[in-house]
Amino acid sequence: MRTADELREVFEAYLGTLPLAPELGRLEEVMRYALDSGGKRVRPVLCLAVADATRGAVARALPAAAALELVHTFSLVHDDLPALDDDAERRGRPSTHVRYGDGVALLAGDALLAEALRLALSYDDPVIARELTDATVGMIGGQHRDILGDVHDLAEVERLKTGRLFSASVGLALNAVGVPLAEQGPWRSFGDELGPLFQVVDDILDEDGFAERLGAEQARRLADDAAERARKRLERLSADTSVLRDLVDGLAVRTR
Amino acid sequence: MRTADELREVFEAYLGTLPLAPELGRLEEVMRYALDSGGKRVRPVLCLAVADATRGAVARALPAAAALELVHTFSLVHDDLPALDDDAERRGRPSTHVRYGDGVALLAGDALLAEALRLALSYDDPVIARELTDATVGMIGGQHRDILGDVHDLAEVERLKTGRLFSASVGLALNAVGVPLAEQGPWRSFGDELGPLFQVVDDILDEDGFAERLGAEQARRLADDAAERARKRLERLSADTSVLRDLVDGLAVRTR
Repeated sequence: MRTADELREVFEAYLGTLPLAPELGRLEEVMRYALDSGGKRVRPVLCLAVADATRGAVARALPAAAALELVHTFSLVHDDLPALDDDAERRGRPSTHVRYGDGVALLAGDALLAEALRLALSYDDPVIARELTDATVGMIGGQHRDILGDVHDLAEVERLKTGRLFSASVGLALNAVGVPLAEQGPWRSFGDELGPLFQVVDDILDEDGFAERLGAEQARRLADDAAERARKRLERLSADTSVLRDLVDGLAVRTR
Repeated sequence: MRTADELREVFEAYLGTLPLAPELGRLEEVMRYALDSGGKRVRPVLCLAVADATRGAVARALPAAAALELVHTFSLVHDDLPALDDDAERRGRPSTHVRYGDGVALLAGDALLAEALRLALSYDDPVIARELTDATVGMIGGQHRDILGDVHDLAEVERLKTGRLFSASVGLALNAVGVPLAEQGPWRSFGDELGPLFQVVDDILDEDGFAERLGAEQARRLADDAAERARKRLERLSADTSVLRDLVDGLAVRTR
């Protein structure tokens, strides 16, 4: 079993040397700028940790992990554009459109999504690409509800916007390492708890969403409940889930 | 054999009733606005005509044809945004971002690409989704070179920006109806001529690209040569290619 930090290192090494399609030309530099944002790689590390916990080959899950990070990065690059959140900075650096211009950032986001699908399609079994595409469609649907302010059901918005990609992080790992469908259920139930956990903590840190609606204290309780449910799901798995438990603990207490 | 107009009708009926992912919610309306732009459906009709000419089942190629049109439409919606061409109209109607706002149009473009991949992944064989994704990556690379003004090799820019999706329109049809790989070559050679033909005529109509560089007369000659090469490719195929020949003739003389 590798620790979360070890998995993150493995992932960074893979992502850093991952060849992108030559036809992208100089757009590759822009995509790499967006990818090298110093993010915590939560989704790919989760994907690799699940692969490892199922005693699957971590290397088999690397393309899936990268595909997840590319989809996540595509959504950040587009979110930061003036057309949406108009954020000039991301993690202390100029956001992609500030650095390269709006048009180039728009295309870089498009290319990150397309490259993500190419990675997911590098597996023989299309089930991986199907799950990633479904999750991406759900994520975009959630973003749209979010910007419409159409949030009478905030949990549903956050399930789509954040949860779909977290659930897919677990699902892609299972299929990448070949866990039979009949054995996937308990793992997937664990994955479905992580989106709510991540998003409520995000709301607390940003003082919006559930924190704005329920107050910080009540939102904190929601987060703790989600973390507790995730831990309970792990306890039911007959596997060494210590690294996954570390990840849950980290998500619950993170400060950014 | 069905005529091009008949194939277009079949396609419109399919596209009009094609279910999109329910999670897209109200974004579906925006996507349908972009798709109902009164376009000529050149790529899907080409795809269906190839399927028909190979004596394959046209219905088998419909999801591939729709996937091609969704990718094309995604690229138009994003191109029209202020970040790129800033076009307020498309075919006499307000462009998607003028009608729905920049942020919503951005997300609708993203969703069109993701839905296109979902359609391509509805086939058992992932080869169709792979070819569409590769073509999309090439198209985006071409768009980037175009906005950089990095056009010392204009033919290469246009091959990527326009040609990749035309070639894929033929390639997807072949795989959708199950033409064996060993028999695909001559069909693909035909497809590879259509991007240059389409793009040079576009340049003539827009008075840019090759028309700007070589003058209208010389560009017209380029277009006629491309059309002639495409017809020659068709003559070598032992199939009824009359509808494909009509399509080539139409592309050569089109006025929009």
